[in-house]
Amino acid sequence: MTTVTTASYDDLSTVKRRYADGVLTLSLNRPESRNAMSILMVNELLLSLEQAENDGAVRIIVLRGENGHFCSGGDIKDMAAARMQPETAGIDAIAEVNARFGELCLAYARTPLAVIVALEGAVMGGGFGLACIADVALASSSTLFRLPETSIGLVPAQIAPFLVERLGYSEAKRLAVTGGHINAQEALSLRLIHELHVDANALDAAVHANIHKILQCAPHAVAASKALMARARLEAPQALIRDAAAVFSHAARSVEGMEGGMAFLQKRKPSWVAANNEAQ
Amino acid sequence: MTTVTTASYDDLSTVKRRYADGVLTLSLNRPESRNAMSILMVNELLLSLEQAENDGAVRIIVLRGENGHFCSGGDIKDMAAARMQPETAGIDAIAEVNARFGELCLAYARTPLAVIVALEGAVMGGGFGLACIADVALASSSTLFRLPETSIGLVPAQIAPFLVERLGYSEAKRLAVTGGHINAQEALSLRLIHELHVDANALDAAVHANIHKILQCAPHAVAASKALMARARLEAPQALIRDAAAVFSHAARSVEGMEGGMAFLQKRKPSWVAANNEAQ
Amino acid sequence: MTTVTTASYDDLSTVKRRYADGVLTLSLNRPESRNAMSILMVNELLLSLEQAENDGAVRIIVLRGENGHFCSGGDIKDMAAARMQPETAGIDAIAEVNARFGELCLAYARTPLAVIVALEGAVMGGGFGLACIADVALASSSTLFRLPETSIGLVPAQIAPFLVERLGYSEAKRLAVTGGHINAQEALSLRLIHELHVDANALDAAVHANIHKILQCAPHAVAASKALMARARLEAPQALIRDAAAVFSHAARSVEGMEGGMAFLQKRKPSWVAANNEAQ
Repeated sequence: MTTVTTASYDDLSTVKRRYADGVLTLSLNRPESRNAMSILMVNELLLSLEQAENDGAVRIIVLRGENGHFCSGGDIKDMAAARMQPETAGIDAIAEVNARFGELCLAYARTPLAVIVALEGAVMGGGFGLACIADVALASSSTLFRLPETSIGLVPAQIAPFLVERLGYSEAKRLAVTGGHINAQEALSLRLIHELHVDANALDAAVHANIHKILQCAPHAVAASKALMARARLEAPQALIRDAAAVFSHAARSVEGMEGGMAFLQKRKPSWVAANNEAQ
Repeated sequence: MTTVTTASYDDLSTVKRRYADGVLTLSLNRPESRNAMSILMVNELLLSLEQAENDGAVRIIVLRGENGHFCSGGDIKDMAAARMQPETAGIDAIAEVNARFGELCLAYARTPLAVIVALEGAVMGGGFGLACIADVALASSSTLFRLPETSIGLVPAQIAPFLVERLGYSEAKRLAVTGGHINAQEALSLRLIHELHVDANALDAAVHANIHKILQCAPHAVAASKALMARARLEAPQALIRDAAAVFSHAARSVEGMEGGMAFLQKRKPSWVAANNEAQ
Repeated sequence: MTTVTTASYDDLSTVKRRYADGVLTLSLNRPESRNAMSILMVNELLLSLEQAENDGAVRIIVLRGENGHFCSGGDIKDMAAARMQPETAGIDAIAEVNARFGELCLAYARTPLAVIVALEGAVMGGGFGLACIADVALASSSTLFRLPETSIGLVPAQIAPFLVERLGYSEAKRLAVTGGHINAQEALSLRLIHELHVDANALDAAVHANIHKILQCAPHAVAASKALMARARLEAPQALIRDAAAVFSHAARSVEGMEGGMAFLQKRKPSWVAANNEAQ
């Protein structure tokens, strides 16, 4: 597979970036705090996603963390600084920072790109939320999940919708009420994660295996499927029939749909790169 | 149990039909294509459901496939033919065919009758969707599930709501993004299926055991429960209290409710046939 | 932990009550009917919840049953009496009784307090519903779950929303259609219960372990998390960002949030009692 990216993905202050063959790997890089989510990191992750969505070459984002941890949650210092700011003229600094993190969650949860998360070590608070947002969540056995908010007087607020999407309302609620410690094996049984691997090497291999599977699927078809399923979570099936039919027809008549049908008849692998470069 | 059916359930072109003792078995019968879902099959399944719903005798529909497979998904030839038709005067043949399949899914998902699906071999695309729609899904170990749409440039569009209903949004999305291969054991652990059996004989025995359990339940009570739960998926609990109370009272005062209460006190099995023949 | 309760929790006719250290234990006490849910019991449970919510000292309600059973479902005699009353002037006695039970379910499902249920023996009908409503459901291996409504001509009406919340729509529907017998091990695999214990002693120990975990979490933070997650079940994530940010900021600026942040920095356990006694 050869794709040409139009963007350059240099490392940012808090996020290491590497692009290759349709896959943008974003590695949270604040090892001194086990990759705590600072305001800068939120902004750099949002920027990276925007670049990737606008760059026709990127199909998959892999989110992970440097130095054996994924993410230990929100940054304490940013929170302390926001607390210092008085609530003046209707500007609530804490709410602003928190809402910005909510925009990050939403952007990654609803991106048309595929998102894989590779989890190790600490997966706490906001990091727990990001694990729930990814389309595919892979973990090594070193992973420990924690939802610490309620035990320090806070609320898992922006991540609540995504905990509910992944775990169901009932299980998400139980975790918030009990302070939410779970290990990797429990996370697998709750389907918080989809695969559990013995070590970092096995985790890397699993990331590649999932990349391989996703690249075999057509990019616009994946995007349309994700969008339709997000609607199906909250809308009645009868309300979706006409729109679903339009989405299906559009896909079938698209360059991708033509290529997919042709490849199927010719018993060859479809080429999504070519399809992707043409207008849909 | 002796019930009199008013309809005759002869075999149709693409669906074998057999009625006995309140149970209508519909077996997809296009073995040359592993029972691919053609337009004709969609229409014959819709017709069969309509007959069954209007025929007071049918309590349960058992959906299965001839020759060791359930259903390999949408028919390629119908799709090719629809693609040939130009989009004229606002008529989109692909969308029309697809929406018709959506009506089939919805009709089986929301029928007041009980629906059992008995799965073997290929369960792909639209067949995967039907497996998610049934109230009870039983499978033999030969079953292989596949959601191939995105890998041929298409979208699992009409089945999206039902994948979400059965598997949850998060798991359904993961399958669409990754091209969705799962085996019978994984299907059981995801509760895509409710029982997994070693072979075709064990599968048949499980169908009968589930029929037995369902026939012990009152038909109108089952129908009312199904309808209420479909609402409870999307409406807030507080919005349902009054309606739920009306449904409960109606059931309690009905012929069924009287028979159920009497049988309980008299420590005998209730007779739902008699109840069913009287007006509710 | 020393808290002062302002209410007195004497035993009621159908509910034994015991308060200690922030925990109100309510034990259903009609052993002659395996703690069937009578109208009086519904009212006494509602009264107890109201007292507990208004009494700043109570953090957790533990629901359980006397004499080795949790609850065998709705009381047959109350139902028979309501059936005797003619439907006059738009007053439907059965619907009124049923709706009152619905109010009980809703009140316990949405209380800001934490709710633990300790299950043994019969967990049927309305009792099954209460098991689904609790934030944390613990069971001993003696527990047998049953959803008998449809097999006596009735509908699991008021509990339908809570079965759906706990088990998902698809599984809840399957249970109603098939008459719903499940044992404790199956209940665990469906996450109807969260922990399964070998005997009554182990169950009691698990209740205490969960109480300990919950008391480490801040009361208002738990309440706010529960409320937000209930919204997240039915509202789109994008609709919640601003409100979630406001909830987060409010928590962070509250006495609890200050205490939580301070305790974290000082590496000590936070004191929620003090926080709770001050205005939020």
